[in-house]
Amino acid sequence: MKGNVIVGQSGGPTAVINSSLAGVYRTAKDRGAKKVYGMLHGIQGFLDEQYVDLSDYIKTDLDVELLKRTPSAFLGSCRYKLPEIHEDREVYEKIFGILDKLDIECFIYIGGNDSMDTIKKLSDYAIVTGKTTKFIGVPKTIDNDLALTDHTPGFGSAAKYIGTATKEVIRDAMGLVYNTDIVTIIEVMGRNAGWLTGATALSKGEDCDGPDLIYLPELAFDIDNFIERVKELLQKKKSVVVAVSEGIKTKEGKYVCEYGNASDYVDAFGHRQLAGTASFLSNLVAAEIGCKTRAVEFSTLQRSASHLASRIDVNEAFQVGGAAVKAAVEGDTGKMIVLKRVSDDPYQCTTDICDVHKISNVEKLVPRDWISRDGTYLTQKFISYIEPLIQGELLPVQVDGIPRHLFLQK
Amino acid sequence: MKGNVIVGQSGGPTAVINSSLAGVYRTAKDRGAKKVYGMLHGIQGFLDEQYVDLSDYIKTDLDVELLKRTPSAFLGSCRYKLPEIHEDREVYEKIFGILDKLDIECFIYIGGNDSMDTIKKLSDYAIVTGKTTKFIGVPKTIDNDLALTDHTPGFGSAAKYIGTATKEVIRDAMGLVYNTDIVTIIEVMGRNAGWLTGATALSKGEDCDGPDLIYLPELAFDIDNFIERVKELLQKKKSVVVAVSEGIKTKEGKYVCEYGNASDYVDAFGHRQLAGTASFLSNLVAAEIGCKTRAVEFSTLQRSASHLASRIDVNEAFQVGGAAVKAAVEGDTGKMIVLKRVSDDPYQCTTDICDVHKISNVEKLVPRDWISRDGTYLTQKFISYIEPLIQGELLPVQVDGIPRHLFLQK
Repeated sequence: MKGNVIVGQSGGPTAVINSSLAGVYRTAKDRGAKKVYGMLHGIQGFLDEQYVDLSDYIKTDLDVELLKRTPSAFLGSCRYKLPEIHEDREVYEKIFGILDKLDIECFIYIGGNDSMDTIKKLSDYAIVTGKTTKFIGVPKTIDNDLALTDHTPGFGSAAKYIGTATKEVIRDAMGLVYNTDIVTIIEVMGRNAGWLTGATALSKGEDCDGPDLIYLPELAFDIDNFIERVKELLQKKKSVVVAVSEGIKTKEGKYVCEYGNASDYVDAFGHRQLAGTASFLSNLVAAEIGCKTRAVEFSTLQRSASHLASRIDVNEAFQVGGAAVKAAVEGDTGKMIVLKRVSDDPYQCTTDICDVHKISNVEKLVPRDWISRDGTYLTQKFISYIEPLIQGELLPVQVDGIPRHLFLQK
Repeated sequence: MKGNVIVGQSGGPTAVINSSLAGVYRTAKDRGAKKVYGMLHGIQGFLDEQYVDLSDYIKTDLDVELLKRTPSAFLGSCRYKLPEIHEDREVYEKIFGILDKLDIECFIYIGGNDSMDTIKKLSDYAIVTGKTTKFIGVPKTIDNDLALTDHTPGFGSAAKYIGTATKEVIRDAMGLVYNTDIVTIIEVMGRNAGWLTGATALSKGEDCDGPDLIYLPELAFDIDNFIERVKELLQKKKSVVVAVSEGIKTKEGKYVCEYGNASDYVDAFGHRQLAGTASFLSNLVAAEIGCKTRAVEFSTLQRSASHLASRIDVNEAFQVGGAAVKAAVEGDTGKMIVLKRVSDDPYQCTTDICDVHKISNVEKLVPRDWISRDGTYLTQKFISYIEPLIQGELLPVQVDGIPRHLFLQK
């Protein structure tokens, strides 16, 4: 390649978003890029001309390995939505001014739905104005809600963490109860899509019952029925564990957490911050049933626990990063790299590219027939889909007993 | 040995309490015990004649390895306090009746302060009534608050999890902030002793700042000063991370969480259930400073995350289990096995035994000179003490991408 590469990260953190960054860097260097820039805090930082030369930070193969094991955006992330082109051309002129100055041939953006919107707008603008920079998106989200790709890098590691942590929480509660009943409500991320909440079912096996009930946001949540089901379960067992998505809503369309003390914070994309679903439901169970309850939120660890990343996921994240550079060098633009599953067993998966216009702002939900008829569990179809994605580990590099990360010293 | 062994588990779960169970089982078998019984749910289940023959569950060396990797009490736990001997002799007669029936030579109890109280009472009763059964305690608590032992099995693994998770939470927050400030409050277990909260400092290293402030329950918490310190830090950095113990109190002696919405639940030992300290403080910061905040509770994972157990801790837990059987066979009773540190670097530690009368109901706190002068950080003495305890990993046996546990099918 003749020009330079710039890469940015956007949206929520994952355990493997930096593995994609490592893949971009390595492939760009292999393909002869003179400079590989990293924009700090995505397109928002880029607009303030905040960027670094990645060679200053990734100097050795060991650095690449550490980067693959470092959670959360190494370069910093943002939640910044570009205006429509006709609304504010100045922003675009500024961006392309900087791109020209840095002689950028490939612009790679690692992110979710909102980030693909950025790729779409920038590539559209380039085509309309005759600019030659190529814009390619690299999928990333723990939520697995991107359309057209079989799954998203980041999801497998989050699912592995959630499956493992759920099993440990179940074991913890089970060891405690004797004459007392205990109901544990586990709250999992995923506003509209239940992929991550469904991953709690991975805890089920010969040595573990798994959660007793799993409620995804795809289906309306019936509070009365939930209480009845928990009561029934307590007739049979002393420890009942329920997994719920943070985004479950009643059939009136109201978030369950809004019945409690929900926060009113709304982010730049108009997404409401949800918190307290498990807390609300556990208080409700305590009040209605009178037993001991416990609310467990996996919080940010479910997306940043790189100490338990899935090896498949880390490798695929690296692979899509590399594929993005390859696609750009070969002349593609306005595209996103996708993962295409060839088979479940043995698991085989390749990369492909697709038009970013088909992807942005479309959310992929869990299909109805992957959820049990009564809406409180996942079917084998779901398990067969998700299980290959959590296989293998990429062990942390331990220094003094704690995982070492690569760190961007500003 | 001529008779049989019975072993029980009591109190809160840890990641390595079953490694001690494995150590008891293995040594008892090696020393010729005909039967090794496990009481279900500690002394409480034992009073209901709930026990199993452990040979039915631990059949192979692989089972021993799985047991070492299984969190929470394999046999089930309890929180049951024996009455004073003069208050209710019937309970004691019942217990010794069952012990006689089972021909128990050694009674081993794995637990914390409250469990050592059980060992003390039972051994006192045996001596007074001329019974020959030996009673030995095996220390176990993530809280590390037992007197006379250098540290407690369970603490190292909890500390390793907390150090790692803190680092991942710090990384997560740092990747997000650009134009916005964010304050993260991490809440850690430990009602009166700050050992676990202090373990958040393990996240500090070349690649991580660690938490900015750490508040232990050993010192009075000043809410106004806390807000001032956070404000000062936000002048210098955009992401501020504060670690607090669930048990911090103001100088008036009131739990900080009681200023919020504390639960009124009190357990059998009269301990108040604490929750919501982080949540209260993060709401307070949001109100007083007006920035985005986040409350992270490590919840039950900090005590049950066997997937990230410390190898040193697992091995020591196994060792104290074995040492308890050895002590009993050699005629000791009313004793607890303790860990005795020989040196920090290289780390060397052996077992010893001490009189359980000296231990029970005494809490070991973090020494004042291991906490910084201003009370918001730990000194190098604390780090030097804790660092050896988190070294090494004992990797889970992964089946289908999820750690396998040994499971007691009732």
